[in-house]
Amino acid sequence: MTDTVLETAPSLAIDETAADLIFRHARTTSQWADAEVSDARLQAAWDLAKLGPTAMNTLPLRVLVVRSTEARQRLVPHMAEGNRPKVEAAPVSLVLAADPAFHEHLDELFPVYPGIREQLAPAAEMREAMARKNALLQAGYLVVALRSVGLATGPMDGMDLDGVDGEFFAESGWKSLMVVNVGVAEGEGSPYPRNPRLSFDQVSQAL
Amino acid sequence: MTDTVLETAPSLAIDETAADLIFRHARTTSQWADAEVSDARLQAAWDLAKLGPTAMNTLPLRVLVVRSTEARQRLVPHMAEGNRPKVEAAPVSLVLAADPAFHEHLDELFPVYPGIREQLAPAAEMREAMARKNALLQAGYLVVALRSVGLATGPMDGMDLDGVDGEFFAESGWKSLMVVNVGVAEGEGSPYPRNPRLSFDQVSQAL
Repeated sequence: MTDTVLETAPSLAIDETAADLIFRHARTTSQWADAEVSDARLQAAWDLAKLGPTAMNTLPLRVLVVRSTEARQRLVPHMAEGNRPKVEAAPVSLVLAADPAFHEHLDELFPVYPGIREQLAPAAEMREAMARKNALLQAGYLVVALRSVGLATGPMDGMDLDGVDGEFFAESGWKSLMVVNVGVAEGEGSPYPRNPRLSFDQVSQAL
Repeated sequence: MTDTVLETAPSLAIDETAADLIFRHARTTSQWADAEVSDARLQAAWDLAKLGPTAMNTLPLRVLVVRSTEARQRLVPHMAEGNRPKVEAAPVSLVLAADPAFHEHLDELFPVYPGIREQLAPAAEMREAMARKNALLQAGYLVVALRSVGLATGPMDGMDLDGVDGEFFAESGWKSLMVVNVGVAEGEGSPYPRNPRLSFDQVSQAL
């Protein structure tokens, strides 16, 4: 009987409080407490998120921290109309982007494969696809990592990505992916009930 | 002085053990203990990961659980040569995929936007792009969630994605993204030292 119970309700390996904080109680947040988001706290989140795995340790995720009123005013017009007030109200907004020039770091990041930097240099299209793919994976890690340091997140898509790239990334060549509002949540952080989710049965097949 | 210390070393909001388990001590694993990975444990991981945010709650990530010898033999030839022994040695391999038909669930998943299912139905190309983007974000949540239930992960890219789609997803239309080996790690799970990471200064700009 005990085995059956364990089988149907396996223990978490992290404590319940952590599971609540990073997944079960965390909400997409649009209601913010009047609290500073220090650079040190963003860095602490990065210092967790950076450890998540990427293909060949490419680590292509880049982060534009939008904090000043001036920078915010440059970002807002590129957002979908419904999201503009959310960016205006957020303590900090992070523009998450992919860096197609990630290969320039690979001598340091992936020493097990000497020459990979030179090999990827002429393959701009492949690099951009690799950058987008692995940066999105890292964006998932970053949402969890921000929550792990006590910050709430409000991720947003559906913006004018080319407009953002032109506004902020003309020199760096970064490719914007999404914007994540970040701060300390007021209450639950959202006035809405949580939307339903798909069960494992609904999303999986087993062979 | 205390403020300065807090500023330069902000506390985690989860306990150190959890931070170690989900990020700091977790390694891309290729060395496995002789331990079963029950369906219930995979489901427990999903029940955390499913709560991570996606655009319009689209939840497009799908999971093929490859457990039988027969299914494994169908998967192996589509992997990059260096990863074939890793799939052969893994207790379970998950093929993570994006479902471009995610819109069929949106009446239930995103009731705040009636008609979005019908609106997206003819936009197959846009749906596939949305599915890939949000499924990769969810893949990041899933790696953390698998670790949260005590499982180790060995994510792999660089396989023949079209080959995998033809082998397994001809009917469902799912689009494969990556394969994640899953099990209980033996020791640290990897014979290699951890590769270096980019610091927040190296990946961020502030405005």
